[in-house]
Amino acid sequence: MMLHTNPYDDDKLREECGIFGIFGNPDAAANTVLGLHALQHRGQEAAGVVTFHDGRFNGHRALGHVAPNFSSEKVIKDLPGDAAIGHVRYSTSGDTLLRNVQPIYADLSFGGFAVAHNGNLTNALTLRNQLVDRGAIFQSTMDTEVITHLVALSTKVGMVERLIDALLQLEGAYSLVALTAKKLIGVRDPYGVRPLVLGSLKGAPILASETCALDILGADYIRDVEPGEVLVIDSEGVHSHFPFPKGQKRFCVFEYIYFARPDSIVEGTSVYEARKRIGAVLASESGVDADVVIPVPDSGVPAAIGYAQASGVPFELGIIRNHYIGRTFIEPTDKIRHFGVKLKHNANRRYIEGKRVILVDDSIVRGTTSTKIVEMVREAGAREVHMRIASPPTTHSCFYGIDTPERSKLLAATHSVEAMREFIKADSLGFISIDGLYRAMGLEGRPNIGLRFCDACFTGEYPIRLTDETVRPARSARQLSLLAEL
Amino acid sequence: MMLHTNPYDDDKLREECGIFGIFGNPDAAANTVLGLHALQHRGQEAAGVVTFHDGRFNGHRALGHVAPNFSSEKVIKDLPGDAAIGHVRYSTSGDTLLRNVQPIYADLSFGGFAVAHNGNLTNALTLRNQLVDRGAIFQSTMDTEVITHLVALSTKVGMVERLIDALLQLEGAYSLVALTAKKLIGVRDPYGVRPLVLGSLKGAPILASETCALDILGADYIRDVEPGEVLVIDSEGVHSHFPFPKGQKRFCVFEYIYFARPDSIVEGTSVYEARKRIGAVLASESGVDADVVIPVPDSGVPAAIGYAQASGVPFELGIIRNHYIGRTFIEPTDKIRHFGVKLKHNANRRYIEGKRVILVDDSIVRGTTSTKIVEMVREAGAREVHMRIASPPTTHSCFYGIDTPERSKLLAATHSVEAMREFIKADSLGFISIDGLYRAMGLEGRPNIGLRFCDACFTGEYPIRLTDETVRPARSARQLSLLAEL
Amino acid sequence: MMLHTNPYDDDKLREECGIFGIFGNPDAAANTVLGLHALQHRGQEAAGVVTFHDGRFNGHRALGHVAPNFSSEKVIKDLPGDAAIGHVRYSTSGDTLLRNVQPIYADLSFGGFAVAHNGNLTNALTLRNQLVDRGAIFQSTMDTEVITHLVALSTKVGMVERLIDALLQLEGAYSLVALTAKKLIGVRDPYGVRPLVLGSLKGAPILASETCALDILGADYIRDVEPGEVLVIDSEGVHSHFPFPKGQKRFCVFEYIYFARPDSIVEGTSVYEARKRIGAVLASESGVDADVVIPVPDSGVPAAIGYAQASGVPFELGIIRNHYIGRTFIEPTDKIRHFGVKLKHNANRRYIEGKRVILVDDSIVRGTTSTKIVEMVREAGAREVHMRIASPPTTHSCFYGIDTPERSKLLAATHSVEAMREFIKADSLGFISIDGLYRAMGLEGRPNIGLRFCDACFTGEYPIRLTDETVRPARSARQLSLLAEL
Amino acid sequence: MMLHTNPYDDDKLREECGIFGIFGNPDAAANTVLGLHALQHRGQEAAGVVTFHDGRFNGHRALGHVAPNFSSEKVIKDLPGDAAIGHVRYSTSGDTLLRNVQPIYADLSFGGFAVAHNGNLTNALTLRNQLVDRGAIFQSTMDTEVITHLVALSTKVGMVERLIDALLQLEGAYSLVALTAKKLIGVRDPYGVRPLVLGSLKGAPILASETCALDILGADYIRDVEPGEVLVIDSEGVHSHFPFPKGQKRFCVFEYIYFARPDSIVEGTSVYEARKRIGAVLASESGVDADVVIPVPDSGVPAAIGYAQASGVPFELGIIRNHYIGRTFIEPTDKIRHFGVKLKHNANRRYIEGKRVILVDDSIVRGTTSTKIVEMVREAGAREVHMRIASPPTTHSCFYGIDTPERSKLLAATHSVEAMREFIKADSLGFISIDGLYRAMGLEGRPNIGLRFCDACFTGEYPIRLTDETVRPARSARQLSLLAEL
Repeated sequence: MMLHTNPYDDDKLREECGIFGIFGNPDAAANTVLGLHALQHRGQEAAGVVTFHDGRFNGHRALGHVAPNFSSEKVIKDLPGDAAIGHVRYSTSGDTLLRNVQPIYADLSFGGFAVAHNGNLTNALTLRNQLVDRGAIFQSTMDTEVITHLVALSTKVGMVERLIDALLQLEGAYSLVALTAKKLIGVRDPYGVRPLVLGSLKGAPILASETCALDILGADYIRDVEPGEVLVIDSEGVHSHFPFPKGQKRFCVFEYIYFARPDSIVEGTSVYEARKRIGAVLASESGVDADVVIPVPDSGVPAAIGYAQASGVPFELGIIRNHYIGRTFIEPTDKIRHFGVKLKHNANRRYIEGKRVILVDDSIVRGTTSTKIVEMVREAGAREVHMRIASPPTTHSCFYGIDTPERSKLLAATHSVEAMREFIKADSLGFISIDGLYRAMGLEGRPNIGLRFCDACFTGEYPIRLTDETVRPARSARQLSLLAEL
Repeated sequence: MMLHTNPYDDDKLREECGIFGIFGNPDAAANTVLGLHALQHRGQEAAGVVTFHDGRFNGHRALGHVAPNFSSEKVIKDLPGDAAIGHVRYSTSGDTLLRNVQPIYADLSFGGFAVAHNGNLTNALTLRNQLVDRGAIFQSTMDTEVITHLVALSTKVGMVERLIDALLQLEGAYSLVALTAKKLIGVRDPYGVRPLVLGSLKGAPILASETCALDILGADYIRDVEPGEVLVIDSEGVHSHFPFPKGQKRFCVFEYIYFARPDSIVEGTSVYEARKRIGAVLASESGVDADVVIPVPDSGVPAAIGYAQASGVPFELGIIRNHYIGRTFIEPTDKIRHFGVKLKHNANRRYIEGKRVILVDDSIVRGTTSTKIVEMVREAGAREVHMRIASPPTTHSCFYGIDTPERSKLLAATHSVEAMREFIKADSLGFISIDGLYRAMGLEGRPNIGLRFCDACFTGEYPIRLTDETVRPARSARQLSLLAEL
Repeated sequence: MMLHTNPYDDDKLREECGIFGIFGNPDAAANTVLGLHALQHRGQEAAGVVTFHDGRFNGHRALGHVAPNFSSEKVIKDLPGDAAIGHVRYSTSGDTLLRNVQPIYADLSFGGFAVAHNGNLTNALTLRNQLVDRGAIFQSTMDTEVITHLVALSTKVGMVERLIDALLQLEGAYSLVALTAKKLIGVRDPYGVRPLVLGSLKGAPILASETCALDILGADYIRDVEPGEVLVIDSEGVHSHFPFPKGQKRFCVFEYIYFARPDSIVEGTSVYEARKRIGAVLASESGVDADVVIPVPDSGVPAAIGYAQASGVPFELGIIRNHYIGRTFIEPTDKIRHFGVKLKHNANRRYIEGKRVILVDDSIVRGTTSTKIVEMVREAGAREVHMRIASPPTTHSCFYGIDTPERSKLLAATHSVEAMREFIKADSLGFISIDGLYRAMGLEGRPNIGLRFCDACFTGEYPIRLTDETVRPARSARQLSLLAEL
Repeated sequence: MMLHTNPYDDDKLREECGIFGIFGNPDAAANTVLGLHALQHRGQEAAGVVTFHDGRFNGHRALGHVAPNFSSEKVIKDLPGDAAIGHVRYSTSGDTLLRNVQPIYADLSFGGFAVAHNGNLTNALTLRNQLVDRGAIFQSTMDTEVITHLVALSTKVGMVERLIDALLQLEGAYSLVALTAKKLIGVRDPYGVRPLVLGSLKGAPILASETCALDILGADYIRDVEPGEVLVIDSEGVHSHFPFPKGQKRFCVFEYIYFARPDSIVEGTSVYEARKRIGAVLASESGVDADVVIPVPDSGVPAAIGYAQASGVPFELGIIRNHYIGRTFIEPTDKIRHFGVKLKHNANRRYIEGKRVILVDDSIVRGTTSTKIVEMVREAGAREVHMRIASPPTTHSCFYGIDTPERSKLLAATHSVEAMREFIKADSLGFISIDGLYRAMGLEGRPNIGLRFCDACFTGEYPIRLTDETVRPARSARQLSLLAEL
């Protein structure tokens, strides 16, 4: 069954995955389930958990949310063991088949190997074609499966050595957790594009995409895994390898703007606080005389609070979110689909009527939702509608693990800010500047050299090679020949 | 299957129902589904829609939310007609069987009759026993079914007359929508305890529990149905009957405090605004020196904003809600159930650590959640935790359509405010006073005579007789003899 | 979901129900499930069981077969008690809703009452209309529900007296089992049209449609319940009432021809033996020179064995049945539906090619299957095909609990035997004569007076008044107004 | 979910698979579904179909029977194309996972390749271990997957050449159908242990395990595929390759005794006729004075007819089979499971009571069912019970595609015939002799040289090497390390 979690285009970029691992804890599966529940915002379409116990790997995978699929006595009992890894996944439509759900597992000559991945490999198709030419048989359409084949075919001795041998062939963004019979392994790519933190639950090491997955367990935060670090956890402790040439950290700045949960601390910075600072910079850069600051819920709330506190214009919940949109409409009729944004949001008319309204949202992708929100606020009687966006214009696609439309579909790729304003029919439109964004992150503006962040979606400066983008056309027919549905 | 929508005790009172009706609109079913989606907060466990078309009634009922169960092409197509009524339902555990889902329908001697009900009849069991003694056969355990039997057995001539004959025998709180082959009928009990509004979608009359169900459709609000009004809508227009002796309006004040959606306008007052005023009064009555005002999300947010604006203490989202708790855990293991409030909330540590925190919540029922929230905030490093509650102490059970625990389980029924503070382990605890609540509602305090609201849960003054409460013990064994599960 | 258990027209009359009851046995539910499994041939579309335990009735109903729906630990555990009744049901398409599954239960003023019914009431609609006019509310479209309403409204004192009061108002064919808090009751209508036997499992009385339900349990057969007998079983033993005027037994002769299981003993006669005798009479009445006697499986087998033994023509399984047709095709494509009889049967070519074949089947209803069977046998190379039918021509519809097409659809109602032969394209066609049928049943032919059997489907002599047949048109629109799907 | 299709031990050997393929027919999928339906007796637990259309392979797999899972409009529409292969599967408990359902598909460097397999490879584990050591990653636990990996890794040029390269490494019994973008390929192992026939539907070539799959489609039988033949079908016609050294045909004789459908013609011999001849030889070898010959239904029927015709003792259906056991009990309670054979069979008492009974069954495996059948017949009043078995004693396990218990569980492996008689509590017990079996097959007895059949289960003479049987212990732990459930 196709799950349409969004009957309307809610016009957001989407994080593709969240990962979690724990070692040496008797409730490894239950704790992994709780951790994944806390990371659910990073992937809502499928989840999986693999544990190791008594010489045997056990797994459960399901389409849908973590809570309804992984919390029962039976599921937890079938996942024994004191080591586990887990994964939540967002995926583009058509590919949400059970065989594409992670962690993926392989029975290799030297033992079992399970791995879960957040990010995107930019040379996955190229590697896959090479592997198929060598006789490898793929069971999924996930880039992650390339990793297990590279490990399987490595001529190195030792599990960590084989994994490193495989990693050295990868290009792209990846944070990984892997589980073998004896080890839990965490990896962050040399640029550290995606997050990964190390925590501890009464001595049991934990790896997780975000600190909110530590908080739910009452676990302590120890440190962020470093870019290029291969962190090996076994019964003797935690060991680090740094197999890559020393490089430059390029953490995804959009994690701060939208993807990460506001209660997470990412690379030492509170996400909520970062968003508030962005709101404050936004107020200083493109302030406007108005009566009320209203967030587009829920992602716009922290920036709106920051904007309001900086500008002195009062903050109100002028748009109310329907909480029951979560699991949402399944194959809705056109009539219902047409209602779009109203299925999710309603104007709180008493706080809008006759007012000059500042709307704060995190980003504009295609512009469709912004247009409907502006229209809804106007219909509720707003005198003026000023849209303020807590990110620079999104002009480029992401190839590092975020689901973005093709560049031609990005409003900012083809429209000036004034043309965008006209498109969404606002009275004014302001984006935070790229320098303003860096200032909100505590720098003095975007540096010419020594960039700490990946901001390719705003600037087009891609830090990692996009190998498949060149190669893809030549072999794309092959992709289609993959067996549908099996 | 038993649906456990709350693995933890989230310790809230629960509205039992929302109702909707529309007449003379070609998309009656789809619009009813949208209206029910907007009313989903009034009942999450089941929903039903009945339409009339071409001499025949059509119905669909389902356990679960409206969106996934009622939005498909197939369901809508099987509900043809230009008149429809619908219902969303919360129910106490064990009774969520499909046969207990409304609207209920009966094939009576003068034609079909469907009805949906928000509220609770306080003499339903007494009437039911009388009806069973006369040979009536009940198919559900819902009080609402009493109404259809009274209509069926009425000796009056004419549908409206028979309905009124039935209504005159009822005691309790009820807002009803009923559908016959020719008419849509709306009723509010003589005290007007539960809300019901009249709207219009391009001329097609609508009845709905709250205005947010009009907003989603872009329909106009016309007026609230009056207490004791029987409003009959047919092809000739809208007609009112007032069959009851003139009485006193006693609208449920808790609708403002918690049940209604903040974007609804109830009896002319914005719910969001009422909550903000309650927060402001609360600040004035029990102010405390602090660094930050933090709402318990999401219901505490408007009062917290009001408190912050009145007190000048900054408002922050110091507790982050997990949005994926909606459909939630199904029969979770003890291990997971144990995590309780953490499955839903996480402290935003950066805004709590070292701070003197004012927590604002709407009410305290058993006190279990408050205890866990205070503990979570303390663990996040709060220096002081001051709990402020946007309602007076809830000391009495509701018998008018709100699911409340037995009185002995209500913390405020057995504890002084100081004992409650100790129970939840806060540094201070303040409730708005009952007079303060009335002031927030625009009066000068609770009047000795001429009460406009039902505040029985705070005062024990029940405006409507509780007939079954006296009778129940004598016949309660009978209730148990009802066939389980069939 | 609509279950199409027959994608092709298999052109059989269908028994509508089987019933079972047991009293005073600690495994009442499990034994009822086993009994219903043995009676599954009497109704394949739904089943239900109700038990009584410790002041409470418990029930489970399901669409589909008994075995997959009623055998699990959980289902049996939820049906505690030492008294139970059960029901299997065939139903015409469109009505197989869970609310139409028996036993039906009602909470009456004097206690709970559950009842299951095999047969058909010929004045059910007339009674229903009267009851609705008195204010009764029906929850199903089953004729059986009339009985519970008549019991509920009876002014007699005592459960048995009220039931008898209700029975005296019924017309039609009915074997019933009913369960109250203290009693198991079995009833056969005054004509005894449908079977019902009394058995005993180590002292615990059992009621069942056929003896095969006793055999599966290793229970003893005691006697057939008599026509017009109301048999009351309670803790003090078994008591009989005969409330009806002494009448004439008219047992359905088609039970012997097709409905009952061959291993059952009905009214003292082995069904298998009766069928063999029918085959023998058929051979004597319409013998033909041939090489092989081939049954249309499985119902034609015993008559074919009887025919072969009497005629000396060898018996062979010349048509092989696919055993996997049981649960069958669900909403098949036209392409597959078109394959009709071949989905179920295949010619055993080696025994047909070049042979003169006698095909033996139990009856011809519409003639569609016979036509395809003859065609299939010819395609397999038969030199001649002689069809012999183990019943007289079916010229009239049944109104006593057998699903028959409208009379106009019965091939024998509109065609002579020669025209039927031409229709099915056989070389010859022979039916047993009505007198031959009676001879096979041990009589000297069909008597002019003192008929022991109902043979209305062959003769048009209906022993019981068909009240609704006259009345139906006047109120049929009402039937349609019943709420679809709820 | 675990499907328990046999709550009781019905004590039969089980064929593991049926296969089907069609090329150049516009309704390839629908015809494959019909063919698989006719082959359902060869595997009831899962089924799969793969088609090729317009550059793309399409597949559907399901647990359960063919009819309910593959007949809908939607499934057929999602399987476009004019070439298809399909598979039905029986499997031992625990392994019926969707990933283990055939056909299996692989995206190889030279294009897609799908294959379905009937039989068992006796060196699969050995090959698998070698392949895993080379870095191959397996996605299932099926021996068949070895074939795709060998094809993938072959260094030959051309699809047929690569397949032959793979086949030359296989040991064991296998009939295969394979589908590539341009070809349908059929293969029978050099010994021809499992059946495979070639047919034609109006010119479109068909491959099927048995002729009954041709009959259902009205297709013509052309010939049996020969042992060691690789039959390649493409748009230019049908071509044969014989890559193996000329060997000796060893067709499984048990196909005649039990596995094949009685209406199939296998290697030129009618299965039904072979069984009748076995019954006749059995009567001549171990005749006994008796009143009635009764088959254990359904598999014993043809032999019983043969026995009765040869001996002159009358044939009667003295045991009646419950037709609704097909889809059967799911996780039944102990109480119900205990009923064992009675859930499926009932004695037809009238034909047993006081009689000397000859029971005819096809084989005895563990002896459990025979014991219960004898007991049931005795309880029904039989004076004597003589069991006659239409096969020699089953003393050895099969490793060529039939699911047999370990040798120690085979009653005949540890008991003399007299001890077996005592075990099943019959008055006498007779098996057909091994020479008698060959005589029934038209030979003069079992030849010393030039055996045409594999009869290893009766003689222990295994024609094909059992490589894995030696190797298995060393690596069996590895098998366990395979990821459970994923």
